[in-house]
Amino acid sequence: LGVTVLPPGSTVGILGGGQLGRMLSLAAARLGLKCHILAPEPDSPAFQVAAANTVADYRDEAALARFASAVDAVTYEFENVLVEAVTFLEALKPVRPGSKALRIAQDRLLEKRLARDLGARTADFVAVSTRAELDQCTEQIGLPAILKTCRFGYDGKGQASIRSAADADEAYAAMKGQAAILESFVSFEMEVSVVAARGHDGSFAAYEVVENEHRNHILHRSRVPARLSSKVCAEAIAIARRIADALDYAGVFAVEYFCADGQLFVNEIAPRVHNSGHWTLDGCLVSQFEQHMRALAGWPLGSTERHSDVEMINLLGDDVDGWRGLAAEPNTAVHFYGKAEARPGRKMGHVNRLTPRQT
Amino acid sequence: LGVTVLPPGSTVGILGGGQLGRMLSLAAARLGLKCHILAPEPDSPAFQVAAANTVADYRDEAALARFASAVDAVTYEFENVLVEAVTFLEALKPVRPGSKALRIAQDRLLEKRLARDLGARTADFVAVSTRAELDQCTEQIGLPAILKTCRFGYDGKGQASIRSAADADEAYAAMKGQAAILESFVSFEMEVSVVAARGHDGSFAAYEVVENEHRNHILHRSRVPARLSSKVCAEAIAIARRIADALDYAGVFAVEYFCADGQLFVNEIAPRVHNSGHWTLDGCLVSQFEQHMRALAGWPLGSTERHSDVEMINLLGDDVDGWRGLAAEPNTAVHFYGKAEARPGRKMGHVNRLTPRQT
Repeated sequence: LGVTVLPPGSTVGILGGGQLGRMLSLAAARLGLKCHILAPEPDSPAFQVAAANTVADYRDEAALARFASAVDAVTYEFENVLVEAVTFLEALKPVRPGSKALRIAQDRLLEKRLARDLGARTADFVAVSTRAELDQCTEQIGLPAILKTCRFGYDGKGQASIRSAADADEAYAAMKGQAAILESFVSFEMEVSVVAARGHDGSFAAYEVVENEHRNHILHRSRVPARLSSKVCAEAIAIARRIADALDYAGVFAVEYFCADGQLFVNEIAPRVHNSGHWTLDGCLVSQFEQHMRALAGWPLGSTERHSDVEMINLLGDDVDGWRGLAAEPNTAVHFYGKAEARPGRKMGHVNRLTPRQT
Repeated sequence: LGVTVLPPGSTVGILGGGQLGRMLSLAAARLGLKCHILAPEPDSPAFQVAAANTVADYRDEAALARFASAVDAVTYEFENVLVEAVTFLEALKPVRPGSKALRIAQDRLLEKRLARDLGARTADFVAVSTRAELDQCTEQIGLPAILKTCRFGYDGKGQASIRSAADADEAYAAMKGQAAILESFVSFEMEVSVVAARGHDGSFAAYEVVENEHRNHILHRSRVPARLSSKVCAEAIAIARRIADALDYAGVFAVEYFCADGQLFVNEIAPRVHNSGHWTLDGCLVSQFEQHMRALAGWPLGSTERHSDVEMINLLGDDVDGWRGLAAEPNTAVHFYGKAEARPGRKMGHVNRLTPRQT
C-alpha cells in the first residue's frame, strides 16, 4: 500500500464539526489544503471555516459515499465516531488514523491491555459484565475504585466512583447494561499528557509533556512545562511512541497519564488532536492541528519546539461572556469556537497565556 | 455616532477574496467572528475559509445591498476597491476603514500631500496631467525621476522611470491618459515599513519596523528587526500614528518608507493589512490579521510584541512547487494561499523563518 501524499490544493474530509474540526480546518488552510466537514448538526462550528460542508448522519451511507468522492483523504475529530462509518470510508479513501487505532481507543479495556502489553503501568483493572461480577471485582481490585463504561465515555460521562460496597448498586445501574471496566483508584499528584504525531513513515514528533488540571472531570487548565523531572517526561514520551508504533498510527494523538510517586500510569489514549494540546496554537510554530494535517497528508512532520511557557485555560459555558476582558489581557491569545449557545459546561473557547520561556 | 462593538458570533463582511481576505477570515475565526466574502472571482481563495460567500461585481448594488444586510460590519482587503462600493455600503453598515482613508490612500498625490502636511518627508513630487507639463516637471524635479499613475498602481504597475529626457514620451504613454505624479528618485539604502493598528477610540499599536527587499517591484523578503537605529524606528512609528490620527483610521494599515542617510521618506500608505506584516502570523501572539479584526470590531487592540526574529519570504509563481522542501525546513512556518494556478509572479504563499530573538 503506497502512501498517498496530498499536495497543497487537496481536500481533506473531516468527520465531526466541533471545535477540533474547526481548528483542524483553520490549520489545513495555512497549508493550502481545503476541508470538507461532515457532521449531523447544521450549525456545526467547523462549517464556518471549511470549503465545503455536508449535513448528514454518520450512518447515512449514501452521504458518506458522496463525501468520500469529494475528498482526497478522511480524518475525524472525535474518538466516538462510529467505527462502521470509518470502515465504510476506508474502502473508498485513505482514512487516517484508521479503524484499528479507533477500535482500541474507543474501548477502555483494549486501551489498557495495549498499554500493559507495551510494558506501561496502568491502574489495576478488570472487565465487568454483570452485577454479580462487580462484587467479585471490587474484592479483587479493592476500594475505592471507579466503574467506567468501556465505550463512549468522555469528560467524566459514563463513570461512577465506588467508595464502599454500598455504592455498587448505583454505580452498576449507571452503566445502563453496557460493558464496563472496574479500575483501581490511583492516588495521583498530577495528571499529565503527551500530545504527539506519528507519520506513515514511522516518523515521530512529540510536544513537551503537559500538566493538566481537571474540574468536574473536564479539563480546566494545561501548562507547559509540566513540573515533572526530565526523566519522567522522557518516559511519558517513550510510552506514547510505543503506543503509536503498535497502532501503526498516522496523525496526532494524546496519551493521558496519572503521575504518583514519580510513576506514570496510562489513563487514556485519544486518537485525535486533544484539548491538552491547544497551547501549541500559540506556543509553537507548528500547532497540533497543523501537525495532524501534515501527518495525514504525508508531509514532513513539523517542529514541536515551543518558544514560550504557556498556560491554557478552557472557557466553559458563560465564561465566554468575559470575552472583552480576556481579549484585553496582555500576552494572552483568545480562541472562541463560534458556538451560538453557551450551555453550562460546554467548551466555548480557550485562552493561551504566554510568558517568556524559563527553561 | 456610537462605536459598534461586534461580540463573538458577529459577521464581518470582507470585500475581496484574495490571500489577505483569506488570512483575515482565518484570524476572525479565532475570535469567534464569522466572515462573509464578496468577490467577483468564483474561485477566490478566501471563499475556502469563510462562513458565507457572494460572487458579485463590486458595482452590483443589489448584491452589495444583500451583502450589507447579511453582515454586521464591512472591511476590505485591497486599496483599489471602488470608493463607490464603499460609499454605498457605508450608508447601510459600518465600513472600516471608511471611504475617507480609502480616497486618500488610493491617490498618490493626496497621500504624499497628507504626509507633507503632517511634517513627514517624501520624495519631491508634482502632479502631471499633460505631456507638456511633464517636461516642465522633469525640469523642476530633476532626473532621474519616476512617473506614476495617481491611482490603481501596485507591485510596480503604473510606473515608469525617466532617466533622461528621451524617456519622457514612453513614460507618458504608459500612463494611458490617467492623472499622474512625477516623483524625484530617492537613492535609498533601505526600504522599511510600519504595520500598525488604530482603534476607533484612538488607541494605537504598531508592530516593530520591518525591513523590506523588493524584486521586480514585488516584495521578496521582510525581516524584523530592521537594521535601523531605534531613533529612526521610533520616528517611523510616530509618523504612522500621525497619519492614522489624521485619517481618523480604524483598522490595520501600513506606511512604506525609503530610508536614506538616516532620513525617512514616506513612499506609500496602504489602508489594509500588508504583505510586510505577514511575519506577525508566526512572530507575534496577535497577528496583523487578528489585529485588524479587533480594531474593526471595537475590541481592545492586542499586543504587538514579537517573541522571535523573523524573516518572511514571498513565494511567487512556481516557487510554490518547492512546498515539500519548505515544509521540511526546521523553524519555518509555511503558508499557502489555496490558489489553483501558479501564474508567474503571482503570490502563492509565503514562509516565515524564525530564529530566537536576539535583541
